[in-house]
Formats: sequence, structure tokens, C-alpha cells
Amino acid sequence: MVKSQVNVSEAFHNRINEAAHTNDSLLCVGLDPDLSRFPVTLRDDTDVARAIVTFNADVIEVTADLVCAYKPNLGFYLAHGAAGVAALEETRRRIPRNIPVILDAKVGDVGSTAEAYATGYFDTWNFDAVTVNPYLGEDSLAPFMRRGDRGVLVVCKTSNPGSGDLQDRRLDAEGDSEPMYLTVADHVAAWSERWPATLGLVVGATYPAELATVRQRCPDLPILLPGIGAQGGELEASVRAGLDSKGGGMLVSSSRSVLYADSAQQPDWKTAVRAEAVRLRDAINAVRAIFV
Amino acid sequence: MVKSQVNVSEAFHNRINEAAHTNDSLLCVGLDPDLSRFPVTLRDDTDVARAIVTFNADVIEVTADLVCAYKPNLGFYLAHGAAGVAALEETRRRIPRNIPVILDAKVGDVGSTAEAYATGYFDTWNFDAVTVNPYLGEDSLAPFMRRGDRGVLVVCKTSNPGSGDLQDRRLDAEGDSEPMYLTVADHVAAWSERWPATLGLVVGATYPAELATVRQRCPDLPILLPGIGAQGGELEASVRAGLDSKGGGMLVSSSRSVLYADSAQQPDWKTAVRAEAVRLRDAINAVRAIFV
Repeated sequence: MVKSQVNVSEAFHNRINEAAHTNDSLLCVGLDPDLSRFPVTLRDDTDVARAIVTFNADVIEVTADLVCAYKPNLGFYLAHGAAGVAALEETRRRIPRNIPVILDAKVGDVGSTAEAYATGYFDTWNFDAVTVNPYLGEDSLAPFMRRGDRGVLVVCKTSNPGSGDLQDRRLDAEGDSEPMYLTVADHVAAWSERWPATLGLVVGATYPAELATVRQRCPDLPILLPGIGAQGGELEASVRAGLDSKGGGMLVSSSRSVLYADSAQQPDWKTAVRAEAVRLRDAINAVRAIFV
Repeated sequence: MVKSQVNVSEAFHNRINEAAHTNDSLLCVGLDPDLSRFPVTLRDDTDVARAIVTFNADVIEVTADLVCAYKPNLGFYLAHGAAGVAALEETRRRIPRNIPVILDAKVGDVGSTAEAYATGYFDTWNFDAVTVNPYLGEDSLAPFMRRGDRGVLVVCKTSNPGSGDLQDRRLDAEGDSEPMYLTVADHVAAWSERWPATLGLVVGATYPAELATVRQRCPDLPILLPGIGAQGGELEASVRAGLDSKGGGMLVSSSRSVLYADSAQQPDWKTAVRAEAVRLRDAINAVRAIFV
């Protein structure tokens, strides 16, 4: 098995915990470039890849001591085709080694295709973790889970209005029925026995009650929490619902509210980005202080 | 609404039907490059993008009169990073205008990210259709469905062993419970009322009984059938189960069995590719002949 060859300090859970400890932060900054919201000087750059890399590198420079992870979302790069992918590759190289980088790809495919994606995301691009979609089942995720030194964050309950279409549907079970997202959480808990220090869950910040139930089912797994800020999630309620018993175990993700922070009261846009990241880190830590 | 601006002949269903009629074929060839299985002359090319484009262009040249669609799977291109994406872009340009091209991406994400993917897949790359994952619900798919001139093929029941982990789980319903993949089929049927001539389903060839049930629920929607050949699906049983009442309405997808056809008895590999594509087209048409 691959995992036996991996030093425990290289496992995803350990690397996330170390970054969270070093920077005293559970904040994860989403690197989701939207050219229309870039600072004017970058927005007018006709070289899209250069504009994105410059923007991301500036964001990384002013936040690298404030975060436990970065999370580029693949969609914002594929929107620009090969130029966007070149920018993604260069962005990944610009992130300091001690900060894990999660590719938000929500990938899910079968057999040799799943292997091809794992090769691309982990070997070619060297991301430390990837988000995955559980709909295709265990074997579709095995090529990611079995690495041992990479993380796999399974989409469980998302923050969007349509998340109820399937995720909240109650599954027939012996005895009580229960919503599908909890069945997903149970699968992830079981996979985590087999592939230790690898797995986590993605639960949207807009549903704190559901988040608390997922935390009960998976007391020790990291939870990636998107939806703070621009998506309307309420920070205090959702962080409180998602923290583990040690006041950790979360990656609280914000993209737009940090990247495109209001700079009207700041000397420049980078200062505004840093100020918003500090504000979020401190707001999260204020909730954690109740636990520790 | 966007759809009212789209000429009906430009709708996905019409374009697929026209290609199927012109070539008298329901065969869809998957363009899934695996360098280790390329002809020796291409395998040794150190320029990965060039090797992939050359291989795909040769496959397209000898099959373009035999297929109703092509279907590159994104994973096999992302495996090679920016070089693979450049090869995907060039491959798309090499496909004749009358053959629809489906990007097999199994995409599913929320809000502005879903919009970014739609921009990338439809505008930047100009694919005619995309495969999507339903787990995140209707609003995650709306940016793809509302185009009017592009197709959206929803993953319903996949061909892999783990497809039962969630897709077969029975949902609690008023009255009878039923497996989740049928709930997905019902959603797709409802979305198709709202976004006509746009939607289809993806159902693996390894489960003909389930395929027949999906066809009953969605009598008029195209079904993309992967899993013929290398994945072990039995052609006759699954085509028979999936055809609509007119003996059409399917895209029978094969990748490896065509691309890497045995050339031992053929003058060269391209002749072997064409011979296998002819064989599959004819085998599918033999089943269709029962219906018409």
C-alpha cells in the first residue's frame, strides 16, 4: 500500500494542522480570479495569464502569514482556456511550501479517467489536496484517497439553494431514514479508517444546523467551509457548529470578500486585502477562544 | 430568455439528430488520449501536445463519416497540464462543424463558479455539450442549461462498481420509495420542459435493466451510453434497452476499443481504428433495425 511509504508528517491532516498552528489561523483564502473585479492596472492587461498571476502573487504576498491553506477553484482558470491553466500552474508555484494548496475541482469520474485526473492534479500540478464529488461512489475516489500524502475533501452539503434537490432527500434505511448528505458523511468516516489523515468534508456555511450534525458524525475530520462572506453564510454560527472538540478541524474559506475587499478607506487594494484577511482570521479565532 | 433567441436547428437535440441521420450512426467516439497506448512513432514524440493532436486528428480523419458525436474526456487532457489543454483546444478545432463535440467533464459547482465553467466550456472552448454531475442541484446546472444552443448531459447511473454507493440508494418518497438515479431522471425530465432540446442523460452500459427504466421515465431524451467495449458493457442488451420508440435517441460511446483497436490483422493502426468504428456502428444499427 502506498500509505505505508508515506511519512506521517507528510499526511494532509498533519500539514494542515501545522500551517494552522504556525499562522494561528483557520482561514483559507480562495484564489478565484475575476478579471472584471481586478484593480484597474491589472484589469487592462491584455495578457490574461500575466494579470492573473500578478494578482494572485500579490494576494499571496500579503496573506501568507494569515492562512492555513489556499484554494484555487479550477473553474475560474478554465474560463480562460490554456492561458488560465498556465496562470494556475504558475500560481501554484508562487505559494510558499509550508501552506497547503487545495484545488477546488469537485472532480468525480470512473476508472482510468479518475486515474488521469489524479495524475494531473497531484503529479503534474502538485496540489496538496482536491475537492471531490461523491455521486459516483468509492472506486471513483480511490485514485485520490490512496495517495497517502494528499488530501481529499468530499462535497457533502453545499451552500447553494439547489443543494436540497438531492442532498437533503431522505434515504430509506433500516429503522430511521436520513438525509443523503449524512450518508455521505458516514461513507467518508468509513473511508477515513482505511486511508487515515487524508479525508475531509465540504459543508456550506449557509446551513449551520446541518453542519453541526456532520460534525457529530465525523468528530475528527477537517471540514472545509465555503460560503462565508459573499455567499451569505454567517461566520459565528457556522464556525461554532463546525469546530472540533479542540477548537480546530476547520478550513474557513473566503474568496471574493478577501480578494475584492473594499479599498475605499485603505491606501491601496493590497492593504484592503490584508485587512479583510486579518479581520476574518481574528473573527474565527474569537469563536475558537470559547473552546480552548 | 436566451432560448427564444436560438434558432431551433441550432438546438443540441437537432444537431445530434442531424449528425446521426447524415452518418446513419449512433456511435460516439471518445477522444481519450493515453500516450502509453499510442502508435510507436507518436509515443516517442517529446512534444506531448503535438503527439495528442496528431493522434486525435488521425482518428477524426478516419471516423468523421461514421459517428454522431465526439466526446473528449477532460481528465485525459488535464493529466498533461497546460500542454494537454492546448491539445484539447486544437483537437476541438480539428473536428468538422457538422459533428457535435461533447466535453466529458462531469462538472458541478455553484454560483459564479458554475458560470465560470460555462464560459470556459462553451465560449472559450466552443464545445457543443457538456456532461454534468447532479449532486449540487438545479441552480448548479442552470448556467449550462439556459444557453439554448448547447447540450447538457446529466450523469444518472454510472457504469462503475461504486455507482451503487449513492445512485442505487432508495429515497424515501410518499408511497413507494425508489432509487436515487430515477429521482435524477425525473429531475432531468422536468428541466427538459423548461429548457427544451437541451438535456440528456448519461447511463452506463453495464446496467441494461436500470437503463430500460430510465428510458421509460424519459422517453424522448437522448441517452449517452458509455461503457461499451473496454468497460465490459454488452452492446446488444444495452442498446436495445436504451433506444427510443423511433430506434434512435442514443449516443453509444466507445473510447479505448476504437482508439487502440488491435492492428495485428490490419495494414496500419488507422485502418484498425476505422474497422472497429465500422463494426460498432453496424452492430448498433443491427439492433436499431428491429425498431424501424
